[in-house]
Amino acid sequence: MVIGSHLDSQPAGGRFDGALGTLSAFEVLESLEDAGIETERPVVVVSWTNEEGCRFAPGCMGSMAFSAGEIPSAWRGKVATDGVDFAEELAKTIASLPEAEMLRLGFPLHAYIEVHIEQGPSLEANDIPIGVVKGIQGTRWLDVAVTGQTAHAGTTGLSYRRDPLHALTCALSGLYEAVMPADPDARFTVGRISAEPGSVNAIPDQVRCTVDMRHPEPSRLDEIERFVTSRIKEEAKRQGCNAEIARSFDMAPCVFSDALQQTIEQAASARKVKSTRMLSGAFHDALFVNRVAPAAMIFVPCRGGLSHNEAEYVERAHAVIGCDVLAQATLAIACESTNGRP
Amino acid sequence: MVIGSHLDSQPAGGRFDGALGTLSAFEVLESLEDAGIETERPVVVVSWTNEEGCRFAPGCMGSMAFSAGEIPSAWRGKVATDGVDFAEELAKTIASLPEAEMLRLGFPLHAYIEVHIEQGPSLEANDIPIGVVKGIQGTRWLDVAVTGQTAHAGTTGLSYRRDPLHALTCALSGLYEAVMPADPDARFTVGRISAEPGSVNAIPDQVRCTVDMRHPEPSRLDEIERFVTSRIKEEAKRQGCNAEIARSFDMAPCVFSDALQQTIEQAASARKVKSTRMLSGAFHDALFVNRVAPAAMIFVPCRGGLSHNEAEYVERAHAVIGCDVLAQATLAIACESTNGRP
Repeated sequence: MVIGSHLDSQPAGGRFDGALGTLSAFEVLESLEDAGIETERPVVVVSWTNEEGCRFAPGCMGSMAFSAGEIPSAWRGKVATDGVDFAEELAKTIASLPEAEMLRLGFPLHAYIEVHIEQGPSLEANDIPIGVVKGIQGTRWLDVAVTGQTAHAGTTGLSYRRDPLHALTCALSGLYEAVMPADPDARFTVGRISAEPGSVNAIPDQVRCTVDMRHPEPSRLDEIERFVTSRIKEEAKRQGCNAEIARSFDMAPCVFSDALQQTIEQAASARKVKSTRMLSGAFHDALFVNRVAPAAMIFVPCRGGLSHNEAEYVERAHAVIGCDVLAQATLAIACESTNGRP
Repeated sequence: MVIGSHLDSQPAGGRFDGALGTLSAFEVLESLEDAGIETERPVVVVSWTNEEGCRFAPGCMGSMAFSAGEIPSAWRGKVATDGVDFAEELAKTIASLPEAEMLRLGFPLHAYIEVHIEQGPSLEANDIPIGVVKGIQGTRWLDVAVTGQTAHAGTTGLSYRRDPLHALTCALSGLYEAVMPADPDARFTVGRISAEPGSVNAIPDQVRCTVDMRHPEPSRLDEIERFVTSRIKEEAKRQGCNAEIARSFDMAPCVFSDALQQTIEQAASARKVKSTRMLSGAFHDALFVNRVAPAAMIFVPCRGGLSHNEAEYVERAHAVIGCDVLAQATLAIACESTNGRP
């Protein structure tokens, strides 16, 4: 079985998103060694690469490649936001870890469990230290480019303007006021926006932004995407501009292994710790591993639900409980009779 | 007297904005030499530096320093968008032109005339080759920063969000729909916008933009600025965010010398060319020179009114007429009896 998480972070992220699950997995290995326990199944710790997708898009490259059984050919020639080449950086990363054994991508796997901070407020608000994750909402990312015509800010009257930022801000303000207020399960976020040529006294000729949309129901995610796309195209047309919208990431909702959820619940119960089944608002490496092997996640509360922020914080007691439940679940799975299965 | 314009350009600017006036001035000097004319007053050609303000802010640094009689101390330590130091670059520029005579900033000046493209559609639309510029509308630039809280795009529900881009797009869309539609003399442009940390799956914690506002009436410009500022602050407050708004540039409207306008009209009339008095929507170096000496401008039509765009274009015949009228006006001023005045 495999336990772990990721170590990369958001540009302004905190210390727990990813790192908590990776260090918890190492702690479990050390505890097994300290206790002199030899398991029936091998226990492998993983630190998936580029989960956040900030440097190379998409996110979850490590777990995605694992579940695909190979590095997708579409990633060839990919360049990072800082200009470096994907293949070169991957080769450097591998070369920097001569101690790590090279394993085949997609090797047969009995179970995957990942400890992670909730990144939302519900466990803390309900005073429950363990979330047993049922599944993950679907996520879709859009790259939006609205093109108009650059012209002089002082001399160009309204009727001569084809201003893509006028179009985009009208579309986005309408979407902010409609998508999330109408559906508490929907998420709508614009994380990046820029205007070219980017001069204070010139109407931009092109404005770009990203859109992150999420929903646990696939059909609602489709509806939201259609609404977002049509609103942007309508406003672009109204300003004499043109909108190009491309999906850069599309992840269907996932449902985790019920058997593993039960194992985690039993582990929490054995440690006399309250747990609750819940959906994940964020996507995680476990979602991709779940495509090729039973996977599950253990959530622990984080202060104020805050994540992707330097103020992200996990109480020491919650970190310990999360690691303890992982250890109990790992023991239960790794020490059961294997009958020769992986 | 001094004639000329500037040679710097917008990042995606055309070949005529500035360059036409500078080359026209050199053409006038060559024509005087070819014709063996010795003028009563010296005729100096100027190419003002950093008129557009794209590399170092503010724009019109050359003419501003001339009218101030010195390089403003506030420019010390100024750094360009590409990271270079203002003082170092200025020293390099001066060192690269050993042929140019060093003149004192703000030397006494009898008159300044600048040929420039209209950068608007009215001369072309009315088939008039010469615009005699009466004055320039006032311009104010704002630097806007709206600060909220970065958080995870997937897990953070609406009530937990303090999204500065939600606030800013709502404010801007309202301003786009109000400021210019309500007043044909008003200009409202956002040329730059960016979000930090700039990750596709994180709510931004800070969004910045610039605002360029223009109006020929000082009191209306004040009203527009108050409206822009209050709308941004209200929307920031509504999203639990904070808005900081600072003026980065403030240029009052200006009125050019009536005597010089008459000289230009007479020059056009002598060449049997139609002319019209008009306001300038853009600001120009002539505005700053006008603070210390009589100044005026000659506008020529540009195709479709397009400027700050690579497609900017001036008909050859219009470029020739503009230069010819400049030559006639220069002759009239430089050859009149000086009685010892500059």
